[in-house]
Amino acid sequence: MGDAPTTRLLLACPDQPGLIARVSGFLAESGLNIVDVDQHSTAEGRFFMRMVFDQVPATERDALELRFAKEIGEPFEMDYAFHQSSRVKRVAAMVSREDHCLSDLLWRWRNDDLGGELVTVISNHPDHAGQVEAVGLPFHHISVTPENKDAAEKQILSLVDDVDLLVLARYMQILSEDFLHALSAPAINIHHSFLPAFVGADPYHRAYERGVKLIGATAHYVTAELDAGPIIAQDVEPVDHRDEVTDMIRIGRDIERLVLARAVMAHLDDRVLLDGDRTIVF
Amino acid sequence: MGDAPTTRLLLACPDQPGLIARVSGFLAESGLNIVDVDQHSTAEGRFFMRMVFDQVPATERDALELRFAKEIGEPFEMDYAFHQSSRVKRVAAMVSREDHCLSDLLWRWRNDDLGGELVTVISNHPDHAGQVEAVGLPFHHISVTPENKDAAEKQILSLVDDVDLLVLARYMQILSEDFLHALSAPAINIHHSFLPAFVGADPYHRAYERGVKLIGATAHYVTAELDAGPIIAQDVEPVDHRDEVTDMIRIGRDIERLVLARAVMAHLDDRVLLDGDRTIVF
Amino acid sequence: MGDAPTTRLLLACPDQPGLIARVSGFLAESGLNIVDVDQHSTAEGRFFMRMVFDQVPATERDALELRFAKEIGEPFEMDYAFHQSSRVKRVAAMVSREDHCLSDLLWRWRNDDLGGELVTVISNHPDHAGQVEAVGLPFHHISVTPENKDAAEKQILSLVDDVDLLVLARYMQILSEDFLHALSAPAINIHHSFLPAFVGADPYHRAYERGVKLIGATAHYVTAELDAGPIIAQDVEPVDHRDEVTDMIRIGRDIERLVLARAVMAHLDDRVLLDGDRTIVF
Amino acid sequence: MGDAPTTRLLLACPDQPGLIARVSGFLAESGLNIVDVDQHSTAEGRFFMRMVFDQVPATERDALELRFAKEIGEPFEMDYAFHQSSRVKRVAAMVSREDHCLSDLLWRWRNDDLGGELVTVISNHPDHAGQVEAVGLPFHHISVTPENKDAAEKQILSLVDDVDLLVLARYMQILSEDFLHALSAPAINIHHSFLPAFVGADPYHRAYERGVKLIGATAHYVTAELDAGPIIAQDVEPVDHRDEVTDMIRIGRDIERLVLARAVMAHLDDRVLLDGDRTIVF
Repeated sequence: MGDAPTTRLLLACPDQPGLIARVSGFLAESGLNIVDVDQHSTAEGRFFMRMVFDQVPATERDALELRFAKEIGEPFEMDYAFHQSSRVKRVAAMVSREDHCLSDLLWRWRNDDLGGELVTVISNHPDHAGQVEAVGLPFHHISVTPENKDAAEKQILSLVDDVDLLVLARYMQILSEDFLHALSAPAINIHHSFLPAFVGADPYHRAYERGVKLIGATAHYVTAELDAGPIIAQDVEPVDHRDEVTDMIRIGRDIERLVLARAVMAHLDDRVLLDGDRTIVF
Repeated sequence: MGDAPTTRLLLACPDQPGLIARVSGFLAESGLNIVDVDQHSTAEGRFFMRMVFDQVPATERDALELRFAKEIGEPFEMDYAFHQSSRVKRVAAMVSREDHCLSDLLWRWRNDDLGGELVTVISNHPDHAGQVEAVGLPFHHISVTPENKDAAEKQILSLVDDVDLLVLARYMQILSEDFLHALSAPAINIHHSFLPAFVGADPYHRAYERGVKLIGATAHYVTAELDAGPIIAQDVEPVDHRDEVTDMIRIGRDIERLVLARAVMAHLDDRVLLDGDRTIVF
Repeated sequence: MGDAPTTRLLLACPDQPGLIARVSGFLAESGLNIVDVDQHSTAEGRFFMRMVFDQVPATERDALELRFAKEIGEPFEMDYAFHQSSRVKRVAAMVSREDHCLSDLLWRWRNDDLGGELVTVISNHPDHAGQVEAVGLPFHHISVTPENKDAAEKQILSLVDDVDLLVLARYMQILSEDFLHALSAPAINIHHSFLPAFVGADPYHRAYERGVKLIGATAHYVTAELDAGPIIAQDVEPVDHRDEVTDMIRIGRDIERLVLARAVMAHLDDRVLLDGDRTIVF
Repeated sequence: MGDAPTTRLLLACPDQPGLIARVSGFLAESGLNIVDVDQHSTAEGRFFMRMVFDQVPATERDALELRFAKEIGEPFEMDYAFHQSSRVKRVAAMVSREDHCLSDLLWRWRNDDLGGELVTVISNHPDHAGQVEAVGLPFHHISVTPENKDAAEKQILSLVDDVDLLVLARYMQILSEDFLHALSAPAINIHHSFLPAFVGADPYHRAYERGVKLIGATAHYVTAELDAGPIIAQDVEPVDHRDEVTDMIRIGRDIERLVLARAVMAHLDDRVLLDGDRTIVF
């Protein structure tokens, strides 16, 4: 908690002795008080760290980052980024017919719980214009057909070119590899199964057919391979023989909106790092 | 609860009006008080019921079952079975190196919580002879190699030919289709993943590789197709990036033994019916 | 599932042999097909049942209920009620400043998932008029002070005199015993702790002070004794030392809205019976 | 994971800028590589940290600890302790009639999962001598009556005077304040409710009476006030109207043994710090 603005440093590099002391020493010498540290070393020899410290004054950021690059970033072969908590991230949401995830994101955003700024909503259906515009957000209806897919994706790209995160809140069209390459922000999708079970279409129908006793949802970063991106959050609820497909769909809505919200909030709070195809969620 | 002995009738048939009244009327006319009813009709038009009632006196069982067959079982094309709670089911357990499920079953049995009688333990390793024999149960070490698999399975069959349930409590050999056909009792297996994810070998390694945020276990009836039998019980626990494969294996042990115990206890309490490849667990 | 209208009979009476057969026989003789039965006998000797059957035609209901009263209800000393699924229950919601439960109920209602008809929203704050009126519902702002409490409660009573259920969706004023006596419908409240822990005000503050590792929510029928009414649904989420009171409040919102929704939906589906101070939720 | 021996430094002190850098710098200057850091600052202004680093060679420990005291421990008013992972903690368990927690601890210990060394078992009943002695542990039967309580507690004290942890694994006698003062090690108790609900005797009976929909268990450090010590771990399972007291007791066993094991393992792994009446579990 606490509302004082902070700077967050996320980094990954080959593991070696002294990394924590080296980085925390650098910050101490720079007069910056560390308020939070999370770190993790993998069995495969990679080191990950999230450090939160007093906000670096705007006038000193460039100098500090330059010095960090020279003294630590480059010698230790680090991937890293500095984030300012005071710079609220801009978020676009895409949705199709089912609006439970969208409604949930809108409610969290209105309630100042989201940790980011919703700036636009895009849908391939016109249904949700009302509730989006009622809270003062622009709503863009872009229908997608096999014929216009290219043009539609270009239009979408132009609408999200300045966002920090794209959230697929039950957007049921598959985005093309070209779209993902052109997209300048990460995208988080909610899939309505506990992946890797039931990749692809109609997971609740297949869950019913298989007779599982749990149904779940998975929030993951979007990659070119369908439903195979790094998983950020997952959860399940019990079901039994009384639950038919329509019940699973209804129960699933509550899981999906919570799991998606958890993943989006963790991302916006700069808590998620990538370790190959896996995530580290500090 | 309650310790008065009961008779349990499990039945399945094509759904049609009047089934509940017909069966409960039959029992009432026979002077039997119904103490518990569970029933379920599927969207596919099949009807399932479990009725528990005062125990039918041993001398009247044949007559009653004959009358039931004629008046109800045959006309309604029912699959059904009468079970006496006073006839405690006999259970054999098979195990390989990991003993957490075996230890758990032994503890529940000693503690009168299992709802059945453990009568024998079979293993392809000698390791657990001590703890099994310490509680007064026979332990059979039958090593299995590609060369002796046929003979080993015949030997196992001869040891379990009078049991009501075979429990594969982390038995890591695949039983042949011939064995399953010859086996006179149902078999319940515990698989260390939330099926249908991670069918087959090394599910925790694959869960780690995929970066899932939940690991689970599945208890299912054994069929010829690997890990594809009807699911009786499933559960999961959260994991995160700190959990390596060995941690998943350790956390998984607690899920596996609970899920297997739940499935075995439900089966022994005559609560599980088959609906094609799915189960109904009343 | 299935959408054919049904009649639901809920009953409670002293336990005795033959009850299930007697009631199901009565329905069969009346030409009514039973589609669902749930029953429970308590250790204290009370019998509870919920039977769902083909809808009784409107013109025959009075005669059927009269016959049921004479032949079964009176002789067996039953408390019972017939409910028609086709008669959708009317629901009023009351709310104070926190709108997460209200927003959730509104969303489920708009989405046809609630199983009842929201007809009015009453609040002691004006804040939520906008979102309520935006979905076409009347919003009544009735501020409550120590001085005007009597008059305010009378005004509320006049607004809810024709509803079937009153939902206190985080309404933070204590309703008087007089109000509850005058209220013609049951009321369900959501309390933000796993009762009986943390009865009364500020449960999250007290949960934080006590250092619990779980926080929860409880939906219960409202009785004159604060937070002591029969519990319908409860759930919890893990917390740890990083979670301060504000985090608990935020995490708690997700538990509260789910637990309240579960309880309200069970009640509207005629699944909840009272067994003294406890509930039976079929 | 990883088996290289480590030193673990646990510390608590008034929060102030520079603490992380100061301690990590001290370790770096001492040539010790930090492999794990967890830290937490409370809203009340207290700072807690757990640092795991290369094991300090035995011959250098005294000098290092002296230097740490002078340069950091005293100036920063720290409470702190150095623990060597190579020094396995000694654990005594006490138990009454119910053996599910004891059996579980014995199984984890035999399986090398406990993270400590069970050295003795004490009981006020003779029942469990067999299973304890079968795994090679001493079993002490010390019956406790109102008359001999003083003498019995003295005898127990003499048996546990060299252990690092005393585990009350469903030991149903209340230990006196004198005993707790004389005890040189911390004690962890498992209480069979989700505290603070149902403090004291017969929690499952009272849970049944109240009609709760969840039952739980709580592992906490033992203090003079009954069931009021700092909570280390808690969990719950759902129950419903079908579950009578005996069912709750049976279901509760599985929760109790898991919750106690989690707390004991966290303590033995030096992950638990005290923040007044609360715990921090890193």
